[in-house]
Amino acid sequence: MGTKALDYESLNENVKKVQYAVRGELYLRASELQKEGKKIIFTNVGNPHALGQKPLTFPRQVVALCQAPFLLDDPNVGLLFPADAIARAKLYLSLTPGGLGAYSDSRGLPGIRKEVAEFIERRDGYPSDPELIFLTDGASKGVMQILNCIIRGEGDGVLVPVPQYPLYSATISLFGGSLVPYYLEETANWGLDVNDLRQAVAQARFKGITVRAMVIINPGNPTGQCLSEANLREILSFCYQENLVLLGDEVYQQNIYQDERPFISARKVLMDMGPPISKEVQLVSFHTVSKGYWGECGQRGGYFEMTNIPPQTVDEIYKISSISLSPNVPAQIFMGLMVNPLKPGDISYEQYVRESKGILESLRRRAWIMTDGFNSCKNVVCNFTEGAMYSFPQIRLPPKAIEAAKKAGKVPDVFYCLKLLEATGISTVPGSGFGQKEGVFHLRTTILPAEEDLPEIMSSFKKFNDEFMEQYEDNWSHSRM
Amino acid sequence: MGTKALDYESLNENVKKVQYAVRGELYLRASELQKEGKKIIFTNVGNPHALGQKPLTFPRQVVALCQAPFLLDDPNVGLLFPADAIARAKLYLSLTPGGLGAYSDSRGLPGIRKEVAEFIERRDGYPSDPELIFLTDGASKGVMQILNCIIRGEGDGVLVPVPQYPLYSATISLFGGSLVPYYLEETANWGLDVNDLRQAVAQARFKGITVRAMVIINPGNPTGQCLSEANLREILSFCYQENLVLLGDEVYQQNIYQDERPFISARKVLMDMGPPISKEVQLVSFHTVSKGYWGECGQRGGYFEMTNIPPQTVDEIYKISSISLSPNVPAQIFMGLMVNPLKPGDISYEQYVRESKGILESLRRRAWIMTDGFNSCKNVVCNFTEGAMYSFPQIRLPPKAIEAAKKAGKVPDVFYCLKLLEATGISTVPGSGFGQKEGVFHLRTTILPAEEDLPEIMSSFKKFNDEFMEQYEDNWSHSRM
Repeated sequence: MGTKALDYESLNENVKKVQYAVRGELYLRASELQKEGKKIIFTNVGNPHALGQKPLTFPRQVVALCQAPFLLDDPNVGLLFPADAIARAKLYLSLTPGGLGAYSDSRGLPGIRKEVAEFIERRDGYPSDPELIFLTDGASKGVMQILNCIIRGEGDGVLVPVPQYPLYSATISLFGGSLVPYYLEETANWGLDVNDLRQAVAQARFKGITVRAMVIINPGNPTGQCLSEANLREILSFCYQENLVLLGDEVYQQNIYQDERPFISARKVLMDMGPPISKEVQLVSFHTVSKGYWGECGQRGGYFEMTNIPPQTVDEIYKISSISLSPNVPAQIFMGLMVNPLKPGDISYEQYVRESKGILESLRRRAWIMTDGFNSCKNVVCNFTEGAMYSFPQIRLPPKAIEAAKKAGKVPDVFYCLKLLEATGISTVPGSGFGQKEGVFHLRTTILPAEEDLPEIMSSFKKFNDEFMEQYEDNWSHSRM
Repeated sequence: MGTKALDYESLNENVKKVQYAVRGELYLRASELQKEGKKIIFTNVGNPHALGQKPLTFPRQVVALCQAPFLLDDPNVGLLFPADAIARAKLYLSLTPGGLGAYSDSRGLPGIRKEVAEFIERRDGYPSDPELIFLTDGASKGVMQILNCIIRGEGDGVLVPVPQYPLYSATISLFGGSLVPYYLEETANWGLDVNDLRQAVAQARFKGITVRAMVIINPGNPTGQCLSEANLREILSFCYQENLVLLGDEVYQQNIYQDERPFISARKVLMDMGPPISKEVQLVSFHTVSKGYWGECGQRGGYFEMTNIPPQTVDEIYKISSISLSPNVPAQIFMGLMVNPLKPGDISYEQYVRESKGILESLRRRAWIMTDGFNSCKNVVCNFTEGAMYSFPQIRLPPKAIEAAKKAGKVPDVFYCLKLLEATGISTVPGSGFGQKEGVFHLRTTILPAEEDLPEIMSSFKKFNDEFMEQYEDNWSHSRM
């Protein structure tokens, strides 16, 4: 028999080219070790509930009632559910003809898209049109849909920050486009320099690539920085000059751990700038129920909002959304609950505030514990996590360690992270999975381990790291003697 | 300013080429009319709950408890939930570290993939490996993933039955491949003739297309036929000879409305055939929680099982699944409940059987009411719906009607379906959306409207159709006089 279509040799080359380190070699090895009985601390994915974060009570009550609407007719329902959860469940059931078991419109339920539009208007101070908001099975699916529309072939480039969340590099590979990197400046707290953008576009053009879009991740993943308003203005002017679609990955907008640089949406800045920019720059913004103090990753809920996208294109995106019929309906309700939360005076309001503040304040403390912990280690430097849920320390590997990695057939930071995993059970993602300047090495860890466990985790990290450094530095200095 | 990346003119051409009639012109017009206050009967999508089908009680109880696990600690939980639902919820929560709010493995929860494997083994009599089963956000997402791996460019062809469910044509367009049609024979109850397959492959080859895969939909959508075991053997031999991957869309396997031709899975027939065929033919089979007597469309749950796919390819598919992190977890639990249902003796067993039998028996009666209703209409002939949930009558349009359609700038069956919609509120999908032989016209309707409404719907259809036929036939015979 000849080669078959699903033999590795004959697969779509774009599929094979995709790299996805967040669940790559480190994750697979960690899963193996876990099966063998080793205790693993999974910090490779921003998956808060997996690390013990409790879900907010109120939204879970509402969705449980929507799943089991017959409970609403039970005289005992009030013993298990508060009146405001019951009322809210009835409201959502009235918005979902057929309930959670029916496909919704492929863009999502109109009533929830309206709640999202009202949220955006409250947040930014500019009206938002529900017809330009599509609900999705998580933000990633939305990003993939939009990139699928933009990328026509390898001549089409997309500017992506480096280091970047590998959703972007993977999706661009999968659709056969070209990733055009722009580097964030680690020594300037992972800031973005517009001159670097210009250079990146010029270099791409030289290679015959037309840059068609630019991605920003704000707050940054894996880098944790928050973009300033001034920086966002520069970016939008640049997109205007270069005729680029801006994709604003704003899934961490609730995750802010300092007060100096609050989150500002790209859309607000765009609108503030006024015409012609506010009328011309095409912007797609993404959000999710997976992050914030919700962390409802497993539900797979998200949305994207389109600004300055012509109606004919919106129709095309609608058509493509229709192929898989509809986003899952329970997560649409989580989205409604997230953007339209309880108000003061509601029965469950105090509990809701207590729970969400508790999570955010603990994350803020954990951001500090991690940053300080990393900075106390030998040959490790780390910017403070202003937002998002990651720490991205630079690991200054001695030449001897790099050599040892080469001998083992590993990229140096993969080598380091594997040793860390074997020694401590801490499962991280090597910086090479996100991109980094040549000869510079990092790792990414989430700040999500339970606060009470964090000191022990950091001290076990320090012990491993300092011994590792000593081992390879000593040898190195000896060998140079 | 020049053209921007999300202007219609500069979108990915493959996106623009996609056609998706199930939510096309007819659906959009129906949505408009509904907004204007007209009562619309949506029979365009197999969406049972939207047409009044009630969800099964037990699985909804289990998932509600999983969404609100704190209820399990409430002393009153037994007042609202039966003990077997409570026990099952505890079981699933023990299988989902972090609960429904945590991303699962990108392939789905291991415990549920094991339940699926056990179901397949019970159904087919051959062991199944959970490592070769991936859970998905509905079957469509799985089909798209596999076709994405297979299609490398327009030189790659996929055999698709015509008429077909447009998921296949749309996805093949989106990934830039070539659809190679094989026609089902309406006069032979939509049977499949292997000689036609040979001819289709030969014709494709003549055009420079390499056929790499074949799709079967069993039971058929939109055609409703069940493939016989003999037919499946022929198909598998053909795939073996031609070196084709077989994609078995078996989402309607529970929807069978006659006893003569029960559902048989492609995998069982493959295994029955023994080596070399059973060891060589690459098969991917798809299933869902959206159909059967479940109809849980809005939850978006499905799986695919791979047979004879090499491990390296399985790894690649795993990698691609990882880009969007994980299928939604609540629907994974629905899948577990579907493949591992209640057993005699369980507290909720009788209710579960009563509910599911009630739905299936009513669907069987509705299949007959519809077929008979269509066959009583002027110029309409219709095969019996052996399985699935659609009726696909042929509408013999008089030349005068075809001419009127041309004048109105419409495809003839679109013209007919639009008139039907305006006159009766019945929203169908024109046969041209599924493909049909030239000069032959159909429409697809689901058999899902409530049984008590069906006689009235069919008589309103008959009234419209017979008047339509009279109008255009009369004119036609007059004009020929």
